[in-house]
Amino acid sequence: MTESFERLWADLAAMGKDPETGGYHRGGWTPTEREATGWFVDQCAARGLALESDGLGNLVGWWEPAAPGETAPGKSAAGEARRTGGTPAQGEVPAAPGGTGGGGLAAGRAVGGEVRSVPGVVTGSHLDSVIDGGAFDGPLGVVSALAAVDRLRAEGFTPSVPIGVGAFVEEEGSRFGMPCLGSRIATGVLAADKALALRDRGGVSLAEALSAAGTDPAGVGPSPLLERMGTFVELHVEQGRALAAPVGVASSIWPHGRFRFTFQGEANHAGTTLMEDRHDPMLTYAMTALAANKQARLAGARATFGRLAVEPNGTNAVPSQVTAWLDARAATDDVLQSLLAAITRLATERAERDGTSVSVVAESVSPIVDFQPGLRDRLAAVLDGAPVLPTGAGHDAGVFSDAGIPTAMLFVRNPTGVSHSPAEYAEMDDCLAGVEALATVLKDLAR
Amino acid sequence: MTESFERLWADLAAMGKDPETGGYHRGGWTPTEREATGWFVDQCAARGLALESDGLGNLVGWWEPAAPGETAPGKSAAGEARRTGGTPAQGEVPAAPGGTGGGGLAAGRAVGGEVRSVPGVVTGSHLDSVIDGGAFDGPLGVVSALAAVDRLRAEGFTPSVPIGVGAFVEEEGSRFGMPCLGSRIATGVLAADKALALRDRGGVSLAEALSAAGTDPAGVGPSPLLERMGTFVELHVEQGRALAAPVGVASSIWPHGRFRFTFQGEANHAGTTLMEDRHDPMLTYAMTALAANKQARLAGARATFGRLAVEPNGTNAVPSQVTAWLDARAATDDVLQSLLAAITRLATERAERDGTSVSVVAESVSPIVDFQPGLRDRLAAVLDGAPVLPTGAGHDAGVFSDAGIPTAMLFVRNPTGVSHSPAEYAEMDDCLAGVEALATVLKDLAR
Repeated sequence: MTESFERLWADLAAMGKDPETGGYHRGGWTPTEREATGWFVDQCAARGLALESDGLGNLVGWWEPAAPGETAPGKSAAGEARRTGGTPAQGEVPAAPGGTGGGGLAAGRAVGGEVRSVPGVVTGSHLDSVIDGGAFDGPLGVVSALAAVDRLRAEGFTPSVPIGVGAFVEEEGSRFGMPCLGSRIATGVLAADKALALRDRGGVSLAEALSAAGTDPAGVGPSPLLERMGTFVELHVEQGRALAAPVGVASSIWPHGRFRFTFQGEANHAGTTLMEDRHDPMLTYAMTALAANKQARLAGARATFGRLAVEPNGTNAVPSQVTAWLDARAATDDVLQSLLAAITRLATERAERDGTSVSVVAESVSPIVDFQPGLRDRLAAVLDGAPVLPTGAGHDAGVFSDAGIPTAMLFVRNPTGVSHSPAEYAEMDDCLAGVEALATVLKDLAR
Repeated sequence: MTESFERLWADLAAMGKDPETGGYHRGGWTPTEREATGWFVDQCAARGLALESDGLGNLVGWWEPAAPGETAPGKSAAGEARRTGGTPAQGEVPAAPGGTGGGGLAAGRAVGGEVRSVPGVVTGSHLDSVIDGGAFDGPLGVVSALAAVDRLRAEGFTPSVPIGVGAFVEEEGSRFGMPCLGSRIATGVLAADKALALRDRGGVSLAEALSAAGTDPAGVGPSPLLERMGTFVELHVEQGRALAAPVGVASSIWPHGRFRFTFQGEANHAGTTLMEDRHDPMLTYAMTALAANKQARLAGARATFGRLAVEPNGTNAVPSQVTAWLDARAATDDVLQSLLAAITRLATERAERDGTSVSVVAESVSPIVDFQPGLRDRLAAVLDGAPVLPTGAGHDAGVFSDAGIPTAMLFVRNPTGVSHSPAEYAEMDDCLAGVEALATVLKDLAR
């Protein structure tokens, strides 16, 4: 198992890595993300996992249960039957159905004429990254899933339901600004027409990016992959310092809101305008940023202003407008609402003093995700009482859980608490403990 | 005079105006700025002013004194002699010498074989604007100069030394980031090689912009135009609310510094990182912006953070770095230094608390410009004791004054104090009083 994990991990290390910062740049449908996805396709093929793609490009490689009379381990007949067109060329990403590119993997129930309807256990995560992100967020879950399959096969385990290894696209939303894009479209939470109209910072729409990748945008929509997703388990690096043991089980995802604050003032000359004549929205923003930090501390919550746009953004100009995005999260929906109310009130009071104005628009608010308690307790039990803890980060697991799929998450310890950064890190021993834990959980769920 | 000014003013009103904001976009060598410059060329031609261009594209249209035996008013023989190739096509900007474009106006002393060496009185300003700037900053000085010439001719005045009407390029520095680009190159303060390597936000160098405009970059350097600039008078809209009378005279330009503050922290996940585990440079920046405002008020000075760059600038990421540009100005060099020291000290103290770091680089520091006292007093006297006041804004006049050219400025009242903004405004009666005052000053200096 150690060897399998380490080899897989080393494979991914260079793809999309910035030689200067050491961080990763794997936005959805970029060449570096496509390279990592092509690698995943190869790994599924090498294991005889029957790869299915939906119309967007979410992928699941299935380890089918042994048919009556078959013996495990090895490639199942069902697995072979579900592949069409032979093994894709090395590194080639299969085009989704209707696409103009090569590949030749068809989607969902269309593959091989018939699909066993037995619900399976899917595990996996995502291969995309935030801008200049770390190595672990996403890839750890995909690599651990493949390594867990290797582990189970090595010990001769035979699943009685299918085990799927999944890679879901654009989880971070770093290209099109919509986190969990793949799972939101797959579950129907995000309508295809709205999704296809999303644009990246360069003005390229999702529809255009898909077409460029040889995928027909007309195929985008609720995913047939979910029909066999009886249970979903996502392994992920923990993203704070909340986990003291090597492996833990998720209880919930905190409620999360993204709020756009627009601070409006009056452009003016930085050299000639008396300080008392100004209506400087930068001051209102600055006080609001400090207030958000303080209010989050008082509430035991999180509040971050990490994205700004200043108009006209000239050195010698008092700005006319500052737009700032607040990322706020708390343990409960009520605490999140109170936090936003407190920050908005303080911003508005300061705006009155500055002669500016402030308006707040909720760009997205995700209520709390409580993972299914029975499944959560079952995981904690088979892992000998692993700690159970919430997370402040959104995940595809949260979207699948909200869609009614019994879902759980495993966390691997993060010794520094750093995430979404080149410095993101987990100890190799903890990663191996994560693979062991995932294999144990899969064995329990697919027995 | 009223008619002349109003017609000239109306001509310029539409060029580079944003229909949404009402503000102007006339960056150096952009189509809108070239349109305004072409208009200036036409206005000089219509008045028989002999137009000279230097190698960069700074322009002066000369009203030559009457030669012995000639009588004014009208086109002087010298003026005719100094033009080559006839009147440029309407709206056409003459290419600087060596350029590949049309036009055919040669520069400086080369024109017409010989140039009278009598030092003249030059008045004028600039036609470029800040991004989304106002109508008055720059154009008011150019239009008033043309209207003052019309006024003097209408009353039969005959200058005994040349009167030049000037338009100097890229005074705001809104395209290449270097304020007073034209005058700095003309005076040799800014070396040609450094200037030509400046790049705009799209990565286009000044050399490339000049070539695209048909101007040979090899001709850029100290300007022969200055050899006949015996005195320079710039009329400008006042940019605060410091002037209660319609017209005033400048005493000095405040010392001015641009300082780049780099706040360095650690990128992290906005949802999962405990508030107490963060090293968030946004907080250090926010406190520094508020401190700069307070310190400037205490010192009777100006401090502005109007330009920011955030890395990675993602909604769900604690930033790794915030870069912020401080524009600071004060009545004396000592006060400016103390102001910067106080802001830097407060930023550094806060950085220690935030676990971040801050570094400060002076991008440019301009010492105080004291306009020549004799000239200043002479202007105030002929204007019947017009108020004398300093300004916080840099101008080409300051660069020419630093280069040893006796220089003065006239200010026209700004009732709102708004500048560098679409809302910048002056009353028409005050503008006309400005033309009257400028005509009076020119008559005194060129008598």
